[in-house]
This record gives sequence, structure tokens and C-alpha cells, in this order.
Amino acid sequence: MRPVALLTDFGHADHYVGVLHAVLERDAPGVTRIDLGHGVRPGDIWDACFQLRCAWPHLPTNCVVMVVVDPGVGTERRAVAVTVGARSLVAPDNGVAAAVAGASAAVALDWRRMGVEKPSMTFHARDLFAPAAARLARNERDLDFGDEIGVGSLLPCPLPDPVFSLSGLEGVIVHVDHFGNLVTNVRGSEAEPSATATWRAGRTSRRVRTYGEAQPEEVVLIEGSAGFLELAVNCGSAAEATGLERGDTVVFSQGDD
Amino acid sequence: MRPVALLTDFGHADHYVGVLHAVLERDAPGVTRIDLGHGVRPGDIWDACFQLRCAWPHLPTNCVVMVVVDPGVGTERRAVAVTVGARSLVAPDNGVAAAVAGASAAVALDWRRMGVEKPSMTFHARDLFAPAAARLARNERDLDFGDEIGVGSLLPCPLPDPVFSLSGLEGVIVHVDHFGNLVTNVRGSEAEPSATATWRAGRTSRRVRTYGEAQPEEVVLIEGSAGFLELAVNCGSAAEATGLERGDTVVFSQGDD
Amino acid sequence: MRPVALLTDFGHADHYVGVLHAVLERDAPGVTRIDLGHGVRPGDIWDACFQLRCAWPHLPTNCVVMVVVDPGVGTERRAVAVTVGARSLVAPDNGVAAAVAGASAAVALDWRRMGVEKPSMTFHARDLFAPAAARLARNERDLDFGDEIGVGSLLPCPLPDPVFSLSGLEGVIVHVDHFGNLVTNVRGSEAEPSATATWRAGRTSRRVRTYGEAQPEEVVLIEGSAGFLELAVNCGSAAEATGLERGDTVVFSQGDD
Repeated sequence: MRPVALLTDFGHADHYVGVLHAVLERDAPGVTRIDLGHGVRPGDIWDACFQLRCAWPHLPTNCVVMVVVDPGVGTERRAVAVTVGARSLVAPDNGVAAAVAGASAAVALDWRRMGVEKPSMTFHARDLFAPAAARLARNERDLDFGDEIGVGSLLPCPLPDPVFSLSGLEGVIVHVDHFGNLVTNVRGSEAEPSATATWRAGRTSRRVRTYGEAQPEEVVLIEGSAGFLELAVNCGSAAEATGLERGDTVVFSQGDD
Repeated sequence: MRPVALLTDFGHADHYVGVLHAVLERDAPGVTRIDLGHGVRPGDIWDACFQLRCAWPHLPTNCVVMVVVDPGVGTERRAVAVTVGARSLVAPDNGVAAAVAGASAAVALDWRRMGVEKPSMTFHARDLFAPAAARLARNERDLDFGDEIGVGSLLPCPLPDPVFSLSGLEGVIVHVDHFGNLVTNVRGSEAEPSATATWRAGRTSRRVRTYGEAQPEEVVLIEGSAGFLELAVNCGSAAEATGLERGDTVVFSQGDD
Repeated sequence: MRPVALLTDFGHADHYVGVLHAVLERDAPGVTRIDLGHGVRPGDIWDACFQLRCAWPHLPTNCVVMVVVDPGVGTERRAVAVTVGARSLVAPDNGVAAAVAGASAAVALDWRRMGVEKPSMTFHARDLFAPAAARLARNERDLDFGDEIGVGSLLPCPLPDPVFSLSGLEGVIVHVDHFGNLVTNVRGSEAEPSATATWRAGRTSRRVRTYGEAQPEEVVLIEGSAGFLELAVNCGSAAEATGLERGDTVVFSQGDD
């Protein structure tokens, strides 16, 4: 049986995530379940795409990955299963399903052909995506769950790429983590080791390699664990220190300038 | 071995839930464990009953379900194991144990007969309920854990039913979810498709079928995933938009009025 | 295979914990994973030591325990695997690794000898500790992961012991739990059943045995589930009621005084 990993914006206040686990265990008894995370900002597709990309390289080779951040649930948006290498990605077709590169095939999920009851209008994770993930875990073929669709027809991932401007390389904060680190969409390799980040008129941060190099309360620029540059405060919260939020701009200029 | 599902108000700040998992694994190595949720409002038996009822239909057939919301821990309240179909429900006898219909037998747990150490005064989940759940998972009989008691003697579930008044069908908010949806105790089938909800003098909401039908920032009435009507804001929080809380009243009138 | 338990300060907003689970499953397919908790206060080694000590007696006998609260990640601090009875503890050498008594051997982890890629500067939990835990779960020997070091060379656990002063037995709040209970470092056996706790000039609490003995809104002193005395409010939050925080002092005097 293949392991199943779950990434959602359902949080931990309710039984929602628990019911997904129950459905997986009901439909694929003994399946290995991995909570990739349920703290995606509610309805935030950027955040879902970002967290999925960060976790992707570390997942088991043949993993079934179910990502549900689904503000359009109950509308006409498609539900899809995408093949990426030996992995399967099950998600609404709202940009999340196209967040990782290398898709080779895709199917539009059809509850009639999956042999499940008609889904509710508000909880397709329970009624459609988890049953699909359980069936894939049991090595059923997604081609039996609906019509094949072109990989190119998937809604593209909306995460912006950094852009070059007169000021330098303009990035954007795509994720604020538990520690208050402000993670941008700029890779460590895209900026010089001597780069500085300007995050508000007159406020800049120098780049360091480890948290330990930062002065107390200093906002520094550091390459995070997924390879992206982030603003951070050692033993503190850069989000609190700067007041910056998801979606705010950070400009990277080279140290030589 | 039977799977074990856990529902508590212990939250995620501490080692409390982790210790329950450790005890289950210690007493029933390899047992399948499902976190149904640990976000029940602290001490809120309504919320525990509601979340249990919502999750119940989706659990594995032979599941052992351990629900611990236990403000009376250490007092004389009974600890019970209840048989409901092929499932077992292990809980304090404070209303939670009677939250689901169909109980056929019940036992008052007695630590002496279970062969465990004398429980602490404050953590029966660890010392009594998890060991009981682990033994049930291993297919031991609850009749060996204490005296049989009448199912009718269980403290009734305190969740109120909606009532008819001059204003219409009066419901109450029994759960506020992670997204800020305000879930009532009124089933979708109890109100007309054209029903409106009055939730404060002069403030009403129309019923829709999907989040997508709502206008931006509009507070709408929608049937949630467990069949109950809830106030919701698409891509927003109805709790924030309305200021309503768990326990507040919502009146449903028919659209023809 | 040995079960693996995880205790970190990574919280639940991100994919960080999920990636640890993915790495464990990737490196030790089918391994039993236990989330001991991820709610340690960010960077708070006291809290990590305290939660580890509370959970320790309840873990499976042969458990591999991975504790990562690691403000010094990327600096020269050692990463270690410590043998304690039949258990292994994998952690940074910052005090956490010495939190439980009975260590018989220790190894300084060396990624080169473990056969993993060079760790990132910011996420050794993913790159070093989880791979080590997975290998230990598969019954590999930690002696193959690096040089043996003296157990006495481990950085000592920084949790303070209570001290006797003119005022009485001075303890300190080492953990604030999900319910707002203020847990001290003083064991129940160290104070008389008639002891009172003074937690601010003129504010004292009497000791009770169960939450049920407290008056509404009364701040009482009670022995918690791990044997330590805590300030608590029945069906309420002592943290809110008192304004006390982690690190604040509580003085215990005997009832006879």
C-alpha cells in the first residue's frame, strides 16, 4: 500500500482533519498516514503551493499527496488526480494541483465512477479527495476515477516569481511561519552572499548564514530550509519586529552596490 | 486489532495528547491511532458531543472511540465504556458518553479490575481511558473492566434541540469552527430552502447551497458538511463579521413569511 | 522496528513537523510515529526539558525519542544520541539531551558517517535528527553515527530546582499549559497537604486534591498529572486570573505557619 500525506487549511479546532484520517482508514485499512500540515492560511492558495513545494522533495517516493485548500468547493472547479513521477497529487484544480513540476498525466475525478456517494456541497476533502487518495493508496488506477485531461489544462500555480526592477530583485513574502520568519519567493542562489534586503524605506537587512550570526533583535536575511530567503530574528519574531505580512514586497540588492 | 480514535479538549500546547498516544502504543503495540481532534473548547461538553456526532458516521466500523472532555475529573463522576453497534465509546459519564444513539450496553470502568495503577486525580485520560481503549483495541471485553450498568442510567447529552417559538424555529450556535463558521443545532432538512436566519434584531441571512453563491462579505446561511445549518462568510469569518458566539440564538423563518 | 516519538517547538502552522514524519517514513518505512508534542514555547529549553520529563515515564520501553528545540542550529553546538535504558534520545546538546536521568552512553552525530547529505544551516531536525531517529528505529547502532562522548560532557539541563529561602520553598513556573494551568518545578511530595502558595504580595492559594474542590474562579494549588504543583482555576485559566507567566516565582509555605 502507498503512504498518504495530507496538506490542508483545516486547522486543529475541529474534527475536519480527524474525519479525513477516519475515511482513509475506513477505505484503506492500515494505510500509512502523514500529516504534512493543516496550518495553511485559510483559503490561501499561495501558501498551499509554497508549503507543498517545500515538503515535496522529502516525501516517500510513491506517496499519494492530498492537498485541499478549496475556497471554490461546491462550484464548478474540477477535482483532479495528477501523476508526478511515482507520486500522485489529489487536489482541487485551483492552482494547487499545478504547484509541483513534472506532471505526466491528470484525471478529472468523477464521484459516479469512483463508486462513492454524491459529495456534499462543502466538504469534498471528506467525500471525494480522501476516498480517491485511499483508492490510490490501494494501488487502484486513477484512470478508473474519471476522464483523462491534459496536464496543460490545469489551472497554473499563482505563486509569483521574483522580478527585476530598477531597485533590484523584487520578491514577495509568501509565507509567515510559526516562529515569525518571513519567507520570500527568492531562492538563496538568486542573490549574492553579500546581498542586502530592503523591506521598507530605509530599513535593510544583511545576509547571514546561521541564526547565531545575528545580533540580538537584529532582523537578518537568511536562506531557510527550503532554499528561499527569509527575514528572521534570532530567538524572536521577524513578523512582530517588522510588521510585515504575507504579500508584502522585499527588494534584494547586491552587496557591491 | 481495532483502531482507536481520540477526541479531547487537550489542545496542542502540551505533551498531554502525545502521552495518550504513547500509552496506546505501550499497551497495544502497533495499534492504529486516529486523532479525531483535540480542539474541543476547554471543558465544553456541548462542543464535544457535537464534534463526536459529526465524525461518528465516518469512523471505521469497529472503531474504539475515546472522548475526554472532563471538567469533573477526580470527582465521583463515573468513567464508562459504551457499546454502540460494533463500536465502543470510552468517556466520562458527563453527557458525552450518551451523545450518539444506539447504545446497547455500558460498563462502569474500575481501575482495580483493569489491572492498572490507581489513577491520578487530574489525568484519567492517561491513567484510565487510554488503557481501557488499548485493551478494547486488543479485543478484550469491557465486561472484564467493571460492572455493567444500564444504558438508560448514562447522564443524557446536554446538547439542546431547536424549539418552535412565535418567531419561528429557534436554534443555537453549538460550534464555531476554524474558519469562523457558526454552526447551529438545526438540520438543513428542518428549514425550507428559502428559509432566512435572523441572528440579531434586523440582521438576517438568506440560504445558499454553496459558498460560491455568496456575495463578498455577505453573511449567508448554508448547510454544512454534517447536515447542520451554519452562518458563513465566503473567504471570511462569520464569527468576526457578526460578533456571535457559541450559545447565541439564531431564529429560522420560512421564506414565504 | 522501534517506535519514534517527536517533541519540538515547531508548532502547527507549517510543513515542518510534516516533513519530519515524511523523512521518518522515507528512511524507515512503516515505522510507528508518535507526536509527543510540537507546542514547546519557541526556543524554550526549560519547557522542552519539562515536557520531556513529564512524558518520559509513559513512553514505550524501547522508544527512540527525538527532541528538537534548537535555537543554536547551524552553530557549533553538538548533535547527540544518548542511550537511556532501552530508549534512545536524539537531540541537540543544549541541555535537552541531559533532561532525563540514567544516561549510559552518548554519541556525537556526524552526518558524514551517517551517510546523509550535508545538513542545511537551519533545519537539522529534518537533515540530521530525523534520519538518525529513523536509523535507530531500524535497529542500527548509534556508535556507527559518530564518536562516542562522555555522558558527563553533555550540557546540563538548565531547569532550576526549587530553593529554600526565608519565605519558604521558592519554586518557579516552568510551563503554562493549554488550560492556563501554571505548572511549577515543585513536586507535590515536597510540600505539605496543608501548604499554601504565595504568588504575589498578599495573594495566596490553598492546596486541594481535585479541581472539583475549588470554588468558582478560585485560584487553587493542586498536584498535576506529572507530580508537580500547579496553580489552577476550575473551568478557567489561572494564567488569565493571575497574570503570572513562565519564569515567575511561587513561594510555598506550610499550613502550620
